[in-house]
Amino acid sequence: MDSTYRDILKWGDKREEEADPLMIKIIRDKFDLEDSDLEMKYLSGNEPVKLEKSSSLKPRQLEFLAGIAGNDNIQCDDFSRAKFSCGKFYGELLDLRLNMIPCPPDAVITPKSHDEVVRIVEYCNNEKIPIIPVGGQSSVTGALKAPLGGIALDLTKHLNKVLKINTENKTVTVQAGISGPALEDELNRHGFTCGHFPQSFEFSTAGGWIAAKGAGQNSTGYGKIEDMVIALKAVTPAGVIETKEYPRTAQGWDIFRLFIGSEGTLGIITEATLSIHYYNPWNTTYASFIFKSFKQAVATMQKMIQSEYGKPHLFRISDPEETDIAFKTKGFDNSLSDKVLKKLGFITGKRSLMFVAVEGDKDYTKFVLNKIKSTAKKGKGMYIGKNPVIKWLEQRYSSAYMRDPLMDLGIMTDTLETAVTWENLLKVWSATHAYVNQRPKTLLMIHISHVYESGANLYFTFLSPMEKGNERNDFAVFHKGLIETIQDNGGSLSHHHGVGRVLAPWMERHLGKTSMEALTAVKKHFDPDNIMNPSGTLGIP
Amino acid sequence: MDSTYRDILKWGDKREEEADPLMIKIIRDKFDLEDSDLEMKYLSGNEPVKLEKSSSLKPRQLEFLAGIAGNDNIQCDDFSRAKFSCGKFYGELLDLRLNMIPCPPDAVITPKSHDEVVRIVEYCNNEKIPIIPVGGQSSVTGALKAPLGGIALDLTKHLNKVLKINTENKTVTVQAGISGPALEDELNRHGFTCGHFPQSFEFSTAGGWIAAKGAGQNSTGYGKIEDMVIALKAVTPAGVIETKEYPRTAQGWDIFRLFIGSEGTLGIITEATLSIHYYNPWNTTYASFIFKSFKQAVATMQKMIQSEYGKPHLFRISDPEETDIAFKTKGFDNSLSDKVLKKLGFITGKRSLMFVAVEGDKDYTKFVLNKIKSTAKKGKGMYIGKNPVIKWLEQRYSSAYMRDPLMDLGIMTDTLETAVTWENLLKVWSATHAYVNQRPKTLLMIHISHVYESGANLYFTFLSPMEKGNERNDFAVFHKGLIETIQDNGGSLSHHHGVGRVLAPWMERHLGKTSMEALTAVKKHFDPDNIMNPSGTLGIP
Repeated sequence: MDSTYRDILKWGDKREEEADPLMIKIIRDKFDLEDSDLEMKYLSGNEPVKLEKSSSLKPRQLEFLAGIAGNDNIQCDDFSRAKFSCGKFYGELLDLRLNMIPCPPDAVITPKSHDEVVRIVEYCNNEKIPIIPVGGQSSVTGALKAPLGGIALDLTKHLNKVLKINTENKTVTVQAGISGPALEDELNRHGFTCGHFPQSFEFSTAGGWIAAKGAGQNSTGYGKIEDMVIALKAVTPAGVIETKEYPRTAQGWDIFRLFIGSEGTLGIITEATLSIHYYNPWNTTYASFIFKSFKQAVATMQKMIQSEYGKPHLFRISDPEETDIAFKTKGFDNSLSDKVLKKLGFITGKRSLMFVAVEGDKDYTKFVLNKIKSTAKKGKGMYIGKNPVIKWLEQRYSSAYMRDPLMDLGIMTDTLETAVTWENLLKVWSATHAYVNQRPKTLLMIHISHVYESGANLYFTFLSPMEKGNERNDFAVFHKGLIETIQDNGGSLSHHHGVGRVLAPWMERHLGKTSMEALTAVKKHFDPDNIMNPSGTLGIP
Repeated sequence: MDSTYRDILKWGDKREEEADPLMIKIIRDKFDLEDSDLEMKYLSGNEPVKLEKSSSLKPRQLEFLAGIAGNDNIQCDDFSRAKFSCGKFYGELLDLRLNMIPCPPDAVITPKSHDEVVRIVEYCNNEKIPIIPVGGQSSVTGALKAPLGGIALDLTKHLNKVLKINTENKTVTVQAGISGPALEDELNRHGFTCGHFPQSFEFSTAGGWIAAKGAGQNSTGYGKIEDMVIALKAVTPAGVIETKEYPRTAQGWDIFRLFIGSEGTLGIITEATLSIHYYNPWNTTYASFIFKSFKQAVATMQKMIQSEYGKPHLFRISDPEETDIAFKTKGFDNSLSDKVLKKLGFITGKRSLMFVAVEGDKDYTKFVLNKIKSTAKKGKGMYIGKNPVIKWLEQRYSSAYMRDPLMDLGIMTDTLETAVTWENLLKVWSATHAYVNQRPKTLLMIHISHVYESGANLYFTFLSPMEKGNERNDFAVFHKGLIETIQDNGGSLSHHHGVGRVLAPWMERHLGKTSMEALTAVKKHFDPDNIMNPSGTLGIP
């Protein structure tokens, strides 16, 4: 039975203890860790959860809400409230390890139907009770905090079904609380795939993907979630929005688009219709390349995506630092093959890996891969087989589990990501490395993982020993500097993690005052009493 | 010197008199016209324009506005006001022929810069003077009427430049008043194409494409205009919106999207950044097919677009009625080849033409065309060479010129279009034919011209003799019935023409009350005093 802070902070439920020994070795060497650092878990969070304040909902309110959802579907105990007070942002995990639950909701409700959601929103709006819609809790932006208390509305328990697979239109209609694997399994059984695989796939939900405007590893081919949504149903204090299924329209601005990226601030997405694709994994073609420099790899990737010969679905470059770690953790470093590579001029600290996978019709996947290979050759990239990308795919989800054992070692580790045009990409890349280099014992790995004709996404993973006793502030200062370095050099605030409360302070600077006022006006219309995920999300006052 | 109603109504400036004799023959036969019907132009509109009321702007207002834009850039004469009172909707053309200008603006202003637009909007907002932004005036939805008078803001005279071709990002930044040909010529010179070719290409503007959410003939490959906009700049009474260039973001809802399809109701789009493509027409591959039935052609098209082997750019099916007219006007009907076709079972009144063109890399265009051919074969489509589609392309823009000579013959003719999922496509197609068949002497041609994995666009062209003396009402009743038939059977209100004032009465029924309220709230934020294209556009109260 779960009861501790650690039960909340861990990623997944099984693998959080399994630290990769090769990764630990790198960390030890890089950060001069002592044996003593490895002996005990730092800030283990193994204490039982205890909240300072009990639920501030009144008995008559709880009773009324229980009347809607049923007694079994409303929880006010400390552990439930603590568990639903956060996502997986590093700052939140650190708080949990420090036995802090700064912003718990007053209750967790698990509604059984769209109609129950309607009734709950109606009641909460009358009573001015905040509502935070919750999916898989994999948010890394502090979007699930409840600074004003209220209700965490957990859609995953009951509203988690596939409603219809439409084979004519190649679409699926789902309830918002369905998880990635549940959706994918059902689609696969019918010969389809959703094509949306964020790293949080195992624990995230369709509703969360839409609310946070997520992207999956195959986004270069299939698009981000906003390219997949055909229609949706959402419950707002201003009424239910239900949009119709059309491939495209010209009927004013698309109302359903307001909910994509709304992060719970407008209402609760209860259903969505998404585009789907044929499930033909046997057709997928793979290629891995190595380049002598990041710059060369990027120029070749740009050429590939702009060549108008079709697009890969998975498309990645690891920068030299990330390539180096990948080679070390896979035991490739200093192998015979590695020595050959180095002889050929693919030098540690310069060389960059590129991964490609193409999905679809079997002739198409071959055709595009051949074109990619030929462009890679012209760009001085060396083909190194299918295996590296296939191996990478195998550990794709589990690499996220690494964060917990790293934090056990007292390592601060988090990620950021940005969208940037080709014009500014190398500038953001070098500026962020320069920024991070100012901090001793800090590792920054960058990759490109979502690619467009006009630019790409840069994804940052950083590691550094925590400043013990000053963990929160040290992180906050470092994190802020990195965000501002990205923005100063032309990167967006977010490409697919969303904004939440963590990035909210930069929204106005980033969007401008007029756009922020427009955002706020839309919010005010749908949620005049500010009950929907209030207090800071998206930077809305 | 232009001075008559006819000078306003004609499509283009040269070809309006050239009636296609084969088309005239079809019309004569179909509608039992007499020689006498051909002798004189019916409602020719050759009278000089005269407005009932003079401009209601006060001298001090005109003076102030002239102070901003310059005396040469403000016109209040009857002809200018009449010319800017309408687009090319059939109802508007009919009014012109009846010497009616129901809703003229009070003045036409041609601003010279973004800053002038800002100052004009500021002043008009203070003075509560309506503004109707105007591009190429090819609107077919009554979006340019000025029921409350005010200013027609014509962006085409000065704000018509390419500001930057960004070869790194494959984007172009333009002023909103640039015309299709001006943009395309400049892009071609730099080795690029905009990839957006609506039938109104010659006379429409980039700003108009965005405001009305248009689509061009290559949309299946390149997308609609909403898929091309990367960023934009717009002047609203609530301030200037200027969005940044990112391939994608996750920063709340995309504010720039609110302006796509806004039809002038929120503000004036002054600049936009659009994605562009390499200009390689020599790579383009073409194919034409004929099918024994519309149903077979549709099923095969659906298969093609859903096959995940790449997509054509131009992708069309003409239904049997349209195919029949095409064969007759091209002189193919009853030719030797036609007799062979009929022998093979491709019968008049059943057979349907399909046109395909693929753009891009030269291997890609061949690859996709081969896949398309192979799918066509499986779907019992017969390949009939490249020529039919190439010939169709040659008359692509000029076919729009036909409307004027047809109206000269007393023929009512207009178009409608809808987006529909595959599931509902044949239902809409047969219901609209059934509806039109109730009216004697009426011809309905339908084609599919924009294709998606989840559905397609159906495009309706109808012809019928006007009810002389009751032209307006007769059209209104027939038109209404057709719109409602489309909607009753699952079609959207519009796929790419927009809504304007003509389709506005159906917006609430179509979107639902909650969505209409949201639309209205967004409008109210950007334009609290309702000066931007007020009174009816998009169905906003």
